[in-house]
Amino acid sequence: MYREQIKVLDCTIRDGGLINNHYFTDEFVRGIYELLSKSGIDYMELGYRNSKELFPTTDYGAWKYCDDNKIREITAGIETDMKLSIMVDAHRVKEQEFVPVDESPVDMIRVATYVKDIDKAIELVNKCHDLGYETTANIMAISKEIEFDLVEALKQLGETAVGVVYVVDSYGALYCEQIEYLVKLYQKYLPGKEIGVHCHNNQQLAYGNTIEGIIHDANYVDGSLFGIGRGAGNCPLELLVGFLKNPKFKLSYILKAIQDYMLPLRDEIEWGYMIPYVITSILNEHPRSAIALRKTEDKDKYAEFYEEMREGVD
Amino acid sequence: MYREQIKVLDCTIRDGGLINNHYFTDEFVRGIYELLSKSGIDYMELGYRNSKELFPTTDYGAWKYCDDNKIREITAGIETDMKLSIMVDAHRVKEQEFVPVDESPVDMIRVATYVKDIDKAIELVNKCHDLGYETTANIMAISKEIEFDLVEALKQLGETAVGVVYVVDSYGALYCEQIEYLVKLYQKYLPGKEIGVHCHNNQQLAYGNTIEGIIHDANYVDGSLFGIGRGAGNCPLELLVGFLKNPKFKLSYILKAIQDYMLPLRDEIEWGYMIPYVITSILNEHPRSAIALRKTEDKDKYAEFYEEMREGVD
Repeated sequence: MYREQIKVLDCTIRDGGLINNHYFTDEFVRGIYELLSKSGIDYMELGYRNSKELFPTTDYGAWKYCDDNKIREITAGIETDMKLSIMVDAHRVKEQEFVPVDESPVDMIRVATYVKDIDKAIELVNKCHDLGYETTANIMAISKEIEFDLVEALKQLGETAVGVVYVVDSYGALYCEQIEYLVKLYQKYLPGKEIGVHCHNNQQLAYGNTIEGIIHDANYVDGSLFGIGRGAGNCPLELLVGFLKNPKFKLSYILKAIQDYMLPLRDEIEWGYMIPYVITSILNEHPRSAIALRKTEDKDKYAEFYEEMREGVD
Repeated sequence: MYREQIKVLDCTIRDGGLINNHYFTDEFVRGIYELLSKSGIDYMELGYRNSKELFPTTDYGAWKYCDDNKIREITAGIETDMKLSIMVDAHRVKEQEFVPVDESPVDMIRVATYVKDIDKAIELVNKCHDLGYETTANIMAISKEIEFDLVEALKQLGETAVGVVYVVDSYGALYCEQIEYLVKLYQKYLPGKEIGVHCHNNQQLAYGNTIEGIIHDANYVDGSLFGIGRGAGNCPLELLVGFLKNPKFKLSYILKAIQDYMLPLRDEIEWGYMIPYVITSILNEHPRSAIALRKTEDKDKYAEFYEEMREGVD
């Protein structure tokens, strides 16, 4: 699938940071940054710019905050065209600071929002846009939203300067026909905007659904190395790059990043295909109960967890 | 997706047997049989009926041959509507015996074939049909076949009594648009026949591609518990059943089979998502070189394996 407009964003450090409270070593982040730079990936997302009042620095690693100086430290001396993005939760904006884009190593700010927080998201998008950043709005958990509310949010976003609006399947609950429907819905209410897809892999559909988005002209697609991300993780970047035939992408560097950095990491922290995440996604629920289960002795009692969850849902 | 005509076939023991030379314990096969019986799955495939001349019994477990008496021993005393199938390779027919269906515990015989062996497949299909069995023809490795030859094979199958013809993505190399194309091609040349899909999971597309088949009216779909199968494995049965809303399916029994039987097995043998299988499938190659790599010290040298494989392909 060759389409020059397609932009690939790697969210390894950002979504992976949700597993380990963003405690990655400098060597790890810099190593990934260097290899991704060579791979031709368009954007690398380093983490969140979170409020230090809401999330004290004693409890989290540097990539929970993504201070500009920290980013400069990690990226210094590596020549690349790869852009950098950070994410900000619309409902968690407090004292965080954003300088004009030409004073920052960051190129793009992605605003994560629930439909109910869309006004906060728009305010933040406008602010970041005025500072010169590329902006996106990532509407989370849409498998739980009623269409009336979602359309209202899309219409409002259509009137802003936001560059890209993402379909985010936070619960890994959607399959291809639903992705097609949503991408087309976004296009209908967001003329002139780019559409993105960010999928979770609870049912091993993150890559397939991302392809589905691409087929229907979503041009911004997210992946992560070896599919790392909270719970079941994300669309594996290696699969996405294997699919996209644009010669600017170099798969070897991505494979190298997996063997050198992701395999050792997976001996320390857990992500990927596990039955409890299948269960929450089949029931269209947040993975939090599955994440909690995996920390207990009952982590592999799938049938019991399924029955418990169903009782909770019915 | 509720469609009464959809039939789900579990190939856990058959495709899983390709990893361990079909050495499953009787307790394992019987345990799975009992739980699948309760799960509402339509067919369970127990293995191959292979030639003992070609494959000596000193080298393989019982499910390489699927003798009727062995099947009776395993299934005795368990009441169920679930049907049983076995597979036969069209190019490996020698002295194997098949008795009339009413003297056998087997309901369906699936003939696996390459396009080049289609005449052998047809002879075997006809023989099995005349003995009263349900029959399928599973055309393997179609991602390597030119359409002229494939269409010729389909036309010939269209004139036989075969009940179902399968799209088999042996290399896990196809994505959704190709599955749609092939299912429609099969339908065009096989009016009145049922279409099946059997996908491999090298790129985590086995489930997504199976859904794609279902959307385009393929009614026979294969899955395996926890996705077991040679290399990257098959479509996970638990995902397929989570998708199909026919109330006859009971997911709990499938989850129980995974926790009680598949998790312990995975401590002994390896299958599932691994980068070497991604690489062979991106290059549309048989996984044999990846299987070989996984048995060496270099099993996680992905970038090197990719470069080597590309040189072999170019």
